[in-house]
Amino acid sequence: MAPNTVEKTPVTLLGLGAMGTALARTWLAAGHPLTVWNRTSARATALAAEGARVADTAADAVAANTLTVVCLLDDTSLEQVLAGTDLAGRDLVNLTTGTPAQARARAEWARERGARYLDGGIMAVPPMIGVPEAGGYVFYSGSRELFEAHRETLATPAGTTYVGEDAGHAALHDVALLSAMYGMFAGAAHAFALIRKEDIDPASLAPLLADWLVAMAPSVHQTADQLRSGDYTKGVVSSLAMQVAGAPTFLSTAEQQGVSPELLSPYFELMRRRLAEGSGEEDLTGVIDLLVR
Amino acid sequence: MAPNTVEKTPVTLLGLGAMGTALARTWLAAGHPLTVWNRTSARATALAAEGARVADTAADAVAANTLTVVCLLDDTSLEQVLAGTDLAGRDLVNLTTGTPAQARARAEWARERGARYLDGGIMAVPPMIGVPEAGGYVFYSGSRELFEAHRETLATPAGTTYVGEDAGHAALHDVALLSAMYGMFAGAAHAFALIRKEDIDPASLAPLLADWLVAMAPSVHQTADQLRSGDYTKGVVSSLAMQVAGAPTFLSTAEQQGVSPELLSPYFELMRRRLAEGSGEEDLTGVIDLLVR
Ligand SMILES: NC(=O)c1ccc[n+]([C@@H]2O[C@H](COP(=O)([O-])OP(=O)(O)OC[C@H]3O[C@@H](n4cnc5c(N)ncnc54)[C@H](OP(=O)(O)O)[C@@H]3O)[C@@H](O)[C@H]2O)c1
Ligand SMILES: NC(=O)c1ccc[n+]([C@@H]2O[C@H](COP(=O)([O-])OP(=O)(O)OC[C@H]3O[C@@H](n4cnc5c(N)ncnc54)[C@H](OP(=O)(O)O)[C@@H]3O)[C@@H](O)[C@H]2O)c1
Repeated sequence: MAPNTVEKTPVTLLGLGAMGTALARTWLAAGHPLTVWNRTSARATALAAEGARVADTAADAVAANTLTVVCLLDDTSLEQVLAGTDLAGRDLVNLTTGTPAQARARAEWARERGARYLDGGIMAVPPMIGVPEAGGYVFYSGSRELFEAHRETLATPAGTTYVGEDAGHAALHDVALLSAMYGMFAGAAHAFALIRKEDIDPASLAPLLADWLVAMAPSVHQTADQLRSGDYTKGVVSSLAMQVAGAPTFLSTAEQQGVSPELLSPYFELMRRRLAEGSGEEDLTGVIDLLVR
Repeated sequence: MAPNTVEKTPVTLLGLGAMGTALARTWLAAGHPLTVWNRTSARATALAAEGARVADTAADAVAANTLTVVCLLDDTSLEQVLAGTDLAGRDLVNLTTGTPAQARARAEWARERGARYLDGGIMAVPPMIGVPEAGGYVFYSGSRELFEAHRETLATPAGTTYVGEDAGHAALHDVALLSAMYGMFAGAAHAFALIRKEDIDPASLAPLLADWLVAMAPSVHQTADQLRSGDYTKGVVSSLAMQVAGAPTFLSTAEQQGVSPELLSPYFELMRRRLAEGSGEEDLTGVIDLLVR
């Protein structure tokens, strides 16, 4: 070993699907000793050639290093893979997607087994892993000590955003952002549907649509301000009353274009309900309270 | 008049609501002779002090100049305001929000009365008018001659984007972009609802949410490419099958957080239907075709 080489933390990785394989490559490339295990062992072959040590069992892999990262399909597969494995004194980082409740239960389960636990929610697709300029990152929550101890190792595949000791909060942030994204995708789908039978090139609409969504996205800051203050009329530019009055234009246009309003009307319906219950001088923040039971 | 002053096109403006007043000020500030009319005449007083000529009737206002811009509440108010007005030889620019069908009917109506007609859809709120760096603009469609003849005058309050001879296409672009925006707002509302009862500051979520939406918005380019080519598997990173498999995590999280899934589930339901009918190797573009009858 060259005199100036700093020893990199050895990592165990369980799960070599699309995401696990991408993670593995970044640790290998950064010089971390890496032990891998995957149910279907063939998926480890290429990584072995790149320098990974392939463990025979998940338990062997966990035993090999203090830090174990898990990236399996779901919480059920994690349960199956780690059943009967000795976790005492281990640092377990779970990058398997799940709900906040699954993450909290898994944190408790790990604590009972003597392990520190950190949960993660990956805000990236595999091609963004190891590509810092792609802007992907991972939400982490749970043991702050674990996060601090392995901060640099965890930052190798993608940026890190620690969101608190509550192990469920990484999953909650992950789901919140992806839910918002699906809403945006639903809106964009409606927009493309509106022009589907017209002589309008979708590729001409796309840049207009992207720019508009990018311009409107920062309005979430105003929503947050209003939620914090409880004053939903603060800084309003387009009133709820005006927006509800405009809704028929959107629904008639959909009708005229032969487009089902099913992705749009639930939001307009909540706007209408809020207007009936609340103040027309608000903007759209009041809709949020109608969603929460 | 100073020797180098270029004569600015005189403009007639009907409608001095929030938007009309903002438009009026930009033409006055740029030195356009401006004739205004509003049903409630008190709304013209301030503009008169700023140099506008106030007409007694809408017909007088239209008779005063070749170019008339209309910015009224809706198509019905336009009908009422312009009934019995002589439009022969006039250039009518309609910035009143409406559906594509209303715009097309209004173009035909104007043609029968001997006027050139341009329809507009304003992608801005009043505070963005006359503020080029705010990025607001107006979609125009209909008479290309009218648009070319008055291009500079029309560009005074906000940027201009001409989208074709079909008078309905400005309204269609307007509605498409705003529909997509409401989808994004619906998604963001769901996201804020998810953290409503947690110890998470909405103002900490907001920048994460805004950045994520901004990062994901350009995916509409890939959607457009797929729509054009008809190949919905082109360039797919997250397959429809994988995304449908992930849907229960979103719905369970909503359930756990006491949040109604009503804004999210219609999109997941269409994803599920598309998976049943189409190919799991696609991403989400196929949902668009399910919306169009
Ligand atoms: N791919 C993405 O874009 C993306 C983005 C963000 C988050 N994630 C999350 O990352 C995690 C992994 O995703 P991925 O894309 O790598 O998925 P994937 O390609 O489908 O791989 C799934 C992995 O889980 C293993 N597995 C499944 N069921 C198992 C079981 N019962 N016992 C043992 N191993 C089992 C598979 O092993 P075999 O090889 O033996 O089948 C494979 O290693 C998921 O939670 C996913 O939500 C993925
Ligand atoms: N404000 C925005 O953020 C915004 C953004 C994009 C597009 N737009 C569009 O711009 C147009 C005007 O909006 P605005 O914000 O200026 O609305 P507004 O403030 O409510 O003003 C409405 C205007 O329409 C007039 N009007 C309504 N009914 C009438 C009738 N039956 N006869 C004659 N005049 C009538 C009003 O006259 P009175 O003063 O006599 O009531 C007033 O001049 C709308 O189509 C709107 O959709 C607005």
